[in-house]
Parts: sequence; C-alpha cells; structure tokens
Amino acid sequence: MQERARATRRALLESAAYLFLEQGYAGTSVTDISVHSGKTSGAIYFHYSSKENLALAVVREQFASWPQLVTPYAAPGVPPLEKLVALSFSVAQALSEDTVARAGARLWAERRSIDAAVPTPFDAWVPAVTRLLAEARIRDELADGIQPSETAATLVCAFFGVCALGDDVPGGRHWSDRLERWWSLVLCALQAHPDPDTLIAQAQMRTPARQEATTQLVRERE
Amino acid sequence: MQERARATRRALLESAAYLFLEQGYAGTSVTDISVHSGKTSGAIYFHYSSKENLALAVVREQFASWPQLVTPYAAPGVPPLEKLVALSFSVAQALSEDTVARAGARLWAERRSIDAAVPTPFDAWVPAVTRLLAEARIRDELADGIQPSETAATLVCAFFGVCALGDDVPGGRHWSDRLERWWSLVLCALQAHPDPDTLIAQAQMRTPARQEATTQLVRERE
Repeated sequence: MQERARATRRALLESAAYLFLEQGYAGTSVTDISVHSGKTSGAIYFHYSSKENLALAVVREQFASWPQLVTPYAAPGVPPLEKLVALSFSVAQALSEDTVARAGARLWAERRSIDAAVPTPFDAWVPAVTRLLAEARIRDELADGIQPSETAATLVCAFFGVCALGDDVPGGRHWSDRLERWWSLVLCALQAHPDPDTLIAQAQMRTPARQEATTQLVRERE
Repeated sequence: MQERARATRRALLESAAYLFLEQGYAGTSVTDISVHSGKTSGAIYFHYSSKENLALAVVREQFASWPQLVTPYAAPGVPPLEKLVALSFSVAQALSEDTVARAGARLWAERRSIDAAVPTPFDAWVPAVTRLLAEARIRDELADGIQPSETAATLVCAFFGVCALGDDVPGGRHWSDRLERWWSLVLCALQAHPDPDTLIAQAQMRTPARQEATTQLVRERE
C-alpha cells in the first residue's frame, strides 16, 4: 500500500475509534468520522466500504496489539503465574488508557447492535491463560485441584469484570489497585505455595509501564 | 391506579423488556413496542412519556426484584458467607433466565447510548456484600487481611464478569458451573478456615431454585 493511502487509513481508524468511544456505534455516523478526520466520506467507503467494516477494523486493531503486550514476558525463566499477572496489568492498562483498545471494548459491549460478527477477545485470551496455568502445573507452582482450561475461562470472565466495570462501582479506585486486590484474592487459590504479595510485586516490576516509571525515577534521582 | 391501567403498564413493560433484550435499545422503536404489546403508541406516551422512561422503568423493575431475592437468606442463623454465595446464585439465575432482569442488564451495558441516567445495580450490591463480609468478620469466619468494603467492590465486579460474559467465552458452561468454579477460587481467600466445597454445597441447597428442584425430585420419587 502506498504511504499516503496507509496514512489515510490510519487517520480514519483513529477518528472512528475516538468517536465510537465517545458516542458509541449507533451515535456515530460516517459524516461524523469524515468531519473529525478531515477526509471525505468517499475516502471512508473506498478504504473500509462501510461503517460496520470500520468498526470491525477498530476491534481487530485492538486485538492486533495483544501479541506486543505478551513479548516482554516471553523470557523462558519467568515463572508462568508471574507472567500471567504481569500480562493482565498490561492488558488492563491498555483497556483503561488506549483509545483504540477502549473503543474496541465499547464496540464489543455494543456488539448486538452492530450488523456484523464482532470478534471476541476471549477466543485468544482463554488459550493463552490455559497455557500459562498448564506451564505452572508442570513446574509444581499450581495448587492441586486447579484445572487449567476451566479455570482459565473463569479468570478471563472475572478479569474482564474487574477491568470493565470498575468505574461504575461505588468507592471506585484506580484500575491497578482494583486488579492488585483481585489477584491477591485469586492467587491464594492458584499458587501451590500461596504468597500473592510477593508475586504481584514481582509481576508489576515486569510491566513496561512500571519499568518506565522506575527508569524515570532513577533518572530523576541521578 | 385502576386495575386496567395497571395491566396496561405491565403489558407495556413486558413487551419493552422483551424487545430491548432481543433488539437492543437503539434497535427498538415505540412503534415496535406498540405492535408487540397490542397497545397504541398513545398509551405508551400516556403511561411512560418516552422510550427513555420506559427503559428506565425496565431497569428499575429489575432492581425492585433484588430485595425479594435476599429474603430467603435473612434468617439470623445462616453463616454470612453462605448467605453471600446463595444470594449470588439467585442473582445469577435471574440474570440468565428472567426477561426483565436480562433486558435490564442489556440496557445497562448500552447505557452510554441512552439519553437518560441509567441507574447502576452496583450502588446496592456493594453495601450489601460489605455488610455480609463485616458480619463474617465478627463471627471469625473471614480470613485475616480481608477488608470488607474494598473486597466487596472487587467481588461485585468479578461476579458481574462471570455472569455477564460467560456465553461469549470459549468452552462455555452453564452459568451455575461457572459461578461455582469462581466461588471455589475466591472462597480459598475469604474463609478463615477454607472449605469452599462444603460452603458452596450448603449455599446451593438454600437457593429457591435448588429447593424447588429437590422438592420436585422428592415428589417424583414418592
């Protein structure tokens, strides 16, 4: 694809994500996206053919970013439950702070109002969590009686609730506090030798956001 | 209110709940509700004044049913964590099987597309769960280090995820299996002397649906 066409597609995707997030799918028209992006409606139909397809592109863009989130934890020496917790912090951060990820989550919540099959993130999450739990079993780090695949589905559902609903629950806290509190409950059941506080602290040190903050802090002190 | 007016309001509410559940808020018009209920559009505007108000009435009707769910567990002798688990099964059953409750949940998920302040169920749930955890603390049944109010918010979010998302997660199970699995993880952390299986079994015996099933079984055997 030519550079200019790629830039137009990107601009349309970002405008659409912003508007879907702010106004919802039903509340956003092709004209709105045209005005916000400064591109013509013709460009929208040329590149994405319909509002439905543009919404699907936003959702897929969100999914395309997950593998990047996994990369920092691919090192073989990292304990699998620590990888799982670190990964959950990265995903939760994206769902709280990244416009495309937040728009994707809103579109998914409104999926029954969209005239297209909106893909679900859980198809990728559940196998990934299952693998990490199975790896923990092999290393004798998973408590007896935990079934990796069935527990993975439960964890993914509960994780989504903790991330997605937090702002609507009274006495709301920052997403990272909520997630930390949730893991400290769940790890009691998951770990062969429960020590949630240590594991969560180690996992948080591995998340890029925390690493950046630490680097920043070190720089400021120097 | 006259009997006939009450019947009309009820018929409109039930038609609206059915259509909001099936087609979503944006996808349902006042005309649709008129056709489905067999009442005139004029009757809809007379009783509810707008589609927004009818949606709010559906959500409030859902909330109005929660206190009834609590009643079976109000007996003073029941251990509070057992009450909590039993209550969660009743709420989850309503959210899975009752049209008005399911419509209320869908309207809540689509709340940002509705031009009215849709009330959240969590304002009532979090204090109720906090009370039960605090009661468990007094009876020495809550693990050390669990803060009732903050843990309550986390449990409510995760519970909602487990109930609301189950059908979209691969390898989906019946809602009661998912909820049972979730409690067996979480109770490990909540109970002062963890024994999730026993507590869950006792709680399930207290839910009216299970009691009905048991009564039915006894009747069939007689």
